Order: sequence, then C-alpha cells, then structure tokens
Amino acid sequence: MASTTSAYRITDLFAERARNIAPPTYGTELTKIISVSFAYGLADPILFPHADLAAASAAVLAKEAPIALNYGPPSAQLYEQIILRLQAKGITADRDRLIIGYGSGQILGLLPDVFVEPGDVVIVEGPTFLGVVSRFVQAGARVITIPVDEMGMDVDALEETLSDFKKQGIRPRFIYTIPTFHNPTGATMPLFRRQKLLGLAAEYGVLVVEDDAYGDLRFQGETVPSLASLDKEGWVLYVSTFSKIIAPGIRLGWACGDPAIIERLAMFKSEGPVGPFVSHVVARYCATGKLDYHIQELIAYYNHKCNLLLEAIAHEFPSDVVALRPGGGFFVWCKLPPNISAQALLTAANEHGVSFLPGTRCYANGQGDDAIRLAFSFQTTEKILEGIALLGAVLRGWG
Amino acid sequence: MASTTSAYRITDLFAERARNIAPPTYGTELTKIISVSFAYGLADPILFPHADLAAASAAVLAKEAPIALNYGPPSAQLYEQIILRLQAKGITADRDRLIIGYGSGQILGLLPDVFVEPGDVVIVEGPTFLGVVSRFVQAGARVITIPVDEMGMDVDALEETLSDFKKQGIRPRFIYTIPTFHNPTGATMPLFRRQKLLGLAAEYGVLVVEDDAYGDLRFQGETVPSLASLDKEGWVLYVSTFSKIIAPGIRLGWACGDPAIIERLAMFKSEGPVGPFVSHVVARYCATGKLDYHIQELIAYYNHKCNLLLEAIAHEFPSDVVALRPGGGFFVWCKLPPNISAQALLTAANEHGVSFLPGTRCYANGQGDDAIRLAFSFQTTEKILEGIALLGAVLRGWG
Repeated sequence: MASTTSAYRITDLFAERARNIAPPTYGTELTKIISVSFAYGLADPILFPHADLAAASAAVLAKEAPIALNYGPPSAQLYEQIILRLQAKGITADRDRLIIGYGSGQILGLLPDVFVEPGDVVIVEGPTFLGVVSRFVQAGARVITIPVDEMGMDVDALEETLSDFKKQGIRPRFIYTIPTFHNPTGATMPLFRRQKLLGLAAEYGVLVVEDDAYGDLRFQGETVPSLASLDKEGWVLYVSTFSKIIAPGIRLGWACGDPAIIERLAMFKSEGPVGPFVSHVVARYCATGKLDYHIQELIAYYNHKCNLLLEAIAHEFPSDVVALRPGGGFFVWCKLPPNISAQALLTAANEHGVSFLPGTRCYANGQGDDAIRLAFSFQTTEKILEGIALLGAVLRGWG
Repeated sequence: MASTTSAYRITDLFAERARNIAPPTYGTELTKIISVSFAYGLADPILFPHADLAAASAAVLAKEAPIALNYGPPSAQLYEQIILRLQAKGITADRDRLIIGYGSGQILGLLPDVFVEPGDVVIVEGPTFLGVVSRFVQAGARVITIPVDEMGMDVDALEETLSDFKKQGIRPRFIYTIPTFHNPTGATMPLFRRQKLLGLAAEYGVLVVEDDAYGDLRFQGETVPSLASLDKEGWVLYVSTFSKIIAPGIRLGWACGDPAIIERLAMFKSEGPVGPFVSHVVARYCATGKLDYHIQELIAYYNHKCNLLLEAIAHEFPSDVVALRPGGGFFVWCKLPPNISAQALLTAANEHGVSFLPGTRCYANGQGDDAIRLAFSFQTTEKILEGIALLGAVLRGWG
C-alpha cells in the first residue's frame, strides 16, 4: 500500500461541465452597506400566516406523524388542494398532470433535462426572470430572446422567429413566458396575444412554459385567463408556486400539464418526491379554507406598497425616468433616460445605501442597461419612502 | 395564425436522455396483498420525536418566521449543529466543507454532475444501495462492482481493479462505499481495510464517497473510525442524513468534504438551498440536546427488533439459510442455499403475504439471486414474528 500524496488532485476528477460551471452571481454586488434594497422579490414577513402554519404543524405532528415523518410521497391532500385551485382557474388538472417540487424554480430548472440537447433552441422573453433562464443557458440551450412591451411578449416578433427557424429546419423546444404580472416589467399579456401565442405553439409544435408565480396577486383590472386555461391542444405546461401566496421558505411549487412531461420531470427530479412533512403542513393549512382570504390580504397590502412606491417615484424621480404601473405582482420596472446606465446607476446608488436589480440582470442577451427593476414586496413602507428619496437624489444629480 | 393540430407531438420535443430514461422500479413488485413487508428501510414511526418536533415548529413559527419562511439559506444553527456532530466524530468540518440537501440521496445523486462524463468509471460495492448507484448508471457511468464480504468491501480486489485500470490509463472518478452497517449486508469494514482503502484512494487519485447513513445506530462492538476521520489527504467525501436518527420525512442530509467539491455540488443543486422552514425546525430540535438521547433509544429499540428477527430466523428458517448479524443499522442479509433463487422465493413469499428485497435489487452487475435483504426497521415486533414464520414455512417447503 502506497500512501504518497502523489501528483493527483481532486479537481482533476471533475467532469467538464463541473469545470466550466459559473458560480451564481445573485447577491454578489452587495459590497457596500445597503440600507434599502429593492433588488430581490422577497416576500413581506409581516404577511406570513405563521400562526396558521403553527396550528397546521401541530396538527400534522399530533395526528399524521407516522406518514408525514416517514419516507413517502407528498401529502395526497396537497395534490387535491392544488388540483382544486387549478380547476378553479379553468385549468385541466388531475394527479397525472401534476408534479410538486421544491419551489417552481426546481421544476423550471428540470426542463432542460427533459427537452434540451446542447444547441437546441429555447425561446425566452427579454427582459425575463434570469434566475431560471440561466439554467437553460447552463444546460447548453441556444437561448433566443423575444422582446417584451407593455402587453408582454411581442408575439409578432415571436412568429417571425418561429418562421425563420422553421425555414432553417429548426424546431425550438419551448417558449418560456411570464404572461401575467411579468417579472420584471409587471406587464400582463392581453387575451388576443395569448390566443396568438397558443396558435403559434400548435402551428410550430413548440411547448409553452407558462410561469404564473404572481397571477393570484392582482391589484386591478379583470383576470385574463391563463394560457393553460385557454390551451385546448395541450401545448402549455403551467408552473406556479406557494412562495408568493403563503411563504417562500416552505419551498413548494408545482407544474401542471401533459402527463408524459410530468412523468419525465418526476424521473429527473432525482432526489424523489418533496418532503412529506412540509407537504402535510401546507395541505392542512390550505384545507382550512383560509388561503383565499389570506390572498385578499396580500393583495391589499402589496397594492398599497406598490402605490406608495409609484407615488414616491412621481415625486422624487426626474420625469424622464418612466415607471410602469404593474397590474399585480412584486415589481416596478423603470426605464432610464439615454444618458443613464443602469449599472452605473447601481454603483452610485450603492454608495448612498440603496440597491435594485439593473436591467442587465434581466436579459439573456446582454441588453437591459436602460432599465431597472424595483421590488416593493419586501421593504416596509418607511423604507420604501426612504429608498426612493435616496435614489431620486442620485438620479436628479446625474450627469 | 394557423391553429391546425398538425402532425406535431409534444413527445417529439424530448431530449434523447428523456426518451431513454427508465421509470424507477422501486415498489413495482407489490401486485399481491402484502401483510408483512421487510422490503424497505422505512423508519419506525413509533420512534419519531413528534412532540419535540412540534415544540420546535411552534418556536420557529413564533420567533423566527420572518427568516424561516422567506427565501434564504438553511438555518445557520443547523450548519452549526451538523458541524458539531461531525467534529465529535473526528471529522474536519466547517461551513465551507458542508452542504445540506434534501436527504443524502439528493447529494449522492448530484455526484455524476460533478464527476462523471459518459463512460467514466465509478466503483461501487456488490451488493450495495442500488437506489443511489442506479443514478450513476443513468448518468452514463461505467459502474464496476467490487465484492463485499463480512468485513465490507474487498480492498484487495479493489487494488487489483485500480491497478488494472491504471495500466489502461483509466482513472476511476470515485469509489462509493457504505463502510459501517453496510446496506444491505450489515457488515462493518475493520480499521485495517479502511486504512488500505484510504491509501489506495491517495495512490490512485480516486475520491472515496463514504455513505454513513446508519453509523449512529450501533448495536454492539466498538466504534470504528469513519473513513473521513482517518483521511489525512482529503480524498473522502462523507455523506450522512437525519433520516435514520430523526425522521426521513423531513428530508435532510449532508455531505462534508473538499470545499471545491462542496461548491460544485451546490451549483448543480439547481433549485437552491434546502427549505429554510424545515432546516430551522430541525436545528431547534438538535439544539435542545435531546438528539443523542433519542439515538440511544433508537439503538435499544432497533437492536431489540434485530435480535427478535434473528431469533425468529434461527427457529423458522432452514439451517442452510445463513443470516448475517449486523453490528447496527436496519437490515439483515440472508444467504440462500444454491437451490433457492431469491426472485423465485419472492414470488412464492408474496403469495403468502410476505415481501423482502431480493439480492438482485442490490447489485449493479446482475448478481444477487443467492441472497435476500430483510429490513427489520419498520415492522412491529408482532409483524416481524408473523412475517418470519410465514417466510420460514415457504423456505421449509421449498423444492
């Protein structure tokens, strides 16, 4: 037996994908002391239903511990509760069409395992939620960006792109869209665009992945039917989460769609079903019937904070900064005048103790230095006012 | 806009790996009504610390909800508690050397992402825990089996294999071993073999993945130091779990080792850190100091069930069925006489309402029809006696 340390190193054993993987960049910009961060879409802790979750936890541990604490699938009651919620939205849902994951992000992150060979085309919005899109890139997808305007994805541009690809014999794998209270722009796609998008999906044989993380948090206007509820031909995979309507820290999201997709997502979710304990707790909470009332409270509170942010912006920001009013969700998207770079603004803002997400962190194609995303979800009303005043001073003193 | 259903099908969009993936086979054999199953290593629900977990949940939701229910990393206190437990075992542990996952299975399942290109050699034991090894196979690893005897992996056979590969210019990526209370044989590798294994790892530059899921559940004999505690050159990744000592349903396991590996495991754990809520609950429970007492109770109870199973086997099974007494853990491994096939025995046993894991489900190389695994962990003492009596009758009537 030799025990020379030898010339070997553990890092030599890494597969190429492990050598090349880039560390996540989220949060790395916080080198300054930040007093008010509008950067991340954290939920407001004041709104967590902690007492109801405590009651549910106590009941689960007193009555269901043998099942909730052992190996096994998620709570059957949780499947039921999610199916009922989906059906109430007009979405075809049953046990075979549903997978529960550790947040919707986990399920979205599994999509490349099912659909993407290196070089395959995936279509995303620009701007978009890069946290998910970066996983498509990491998996080797050729990510193509379709612009977003105040009505969401530009479906005419999408049609051109699909048509061009078809001429090249290329069939994109899926289109990732956030049609309702879009992250980051807050835009909601109107019905006519949704119908056109679904027609294009069927015509070109491309899956539509509908991310509806924020859809329950509507501040104004009428509900626009989800793509999944409009889809009669089975081209939509609907993805949502309890993160915005109960709490992110329970890590529970789901996808609903074609059973062949659901089955494969489950196979690539290699650690097995989500934790029985948490799923039982959340199922019990949902079964109390309190969630819909809770969502009404959330809407009132987040709407108030959104209005406050927009009013403060109207007072504090130069008039050539254009803030878009979202119909719901967590974010306000602000377009900057041509002389202000989002990244330069972030550096200056950080010096004054304020942070936000520069638009460059919302595009897969390098664009976005002309806009910023402000998350109003997490900060208190006082901090919102303080932060916008500070940011307004930086903007007014620009150039 | 066309909306023809057209010739497209969603399944055409699947990547090759998604077309080829095989559904999991676990549990598919239960076509008969099973009265007593010794098949799976479920924990005994009677031993779940549900009242202590309820107290911990209540405290977390009353005092830490703003952090425990929002986005964020696992509880800092949970890292501390695991680090203390590792250090008490003589293992070098700190924050940079530790990753927490949804069960140790999740982390083991991520190993191919870090280490395996298709065709790379991975060395496993035969028999072994196939639930994990099947993921190495699925990732395209060339899985090589080293035999296990009553002292665990045959390290002389390992040396020969490593030497042969070296002559071919092949450097295996890692060696997956369960050196303590091996699943399925119950064997524990003695110190001299552990030292030889570590020497070989350093000599050939191969990572050793030590799965220590059962190490705390020692029924008899003295503790043999873990490979990780003996490893002075950094070739061991130590993996363990709360599943056997608290409850599987909380889904929390960890790996401790070289920070470069931990960092990459974290990057491939694409859904982000484990759920803040559950991690806070378990951290609070651990911080009460009750876990070590709880483990003593588990040991007494599982030891009792193990003894009962072995006594029942001595009375009920023909003498040419050889049951190995485990030093701890959840399983008894029985070698069958040459005229009995484990798979045929399973079919016959199922007819009588008894189930177990045939040895064929414990080998990556097709062996194992000469042995069966009996899990005593889950069944009540009454069911253990009933099941062994039924299985004994089938065995005695064989041939």
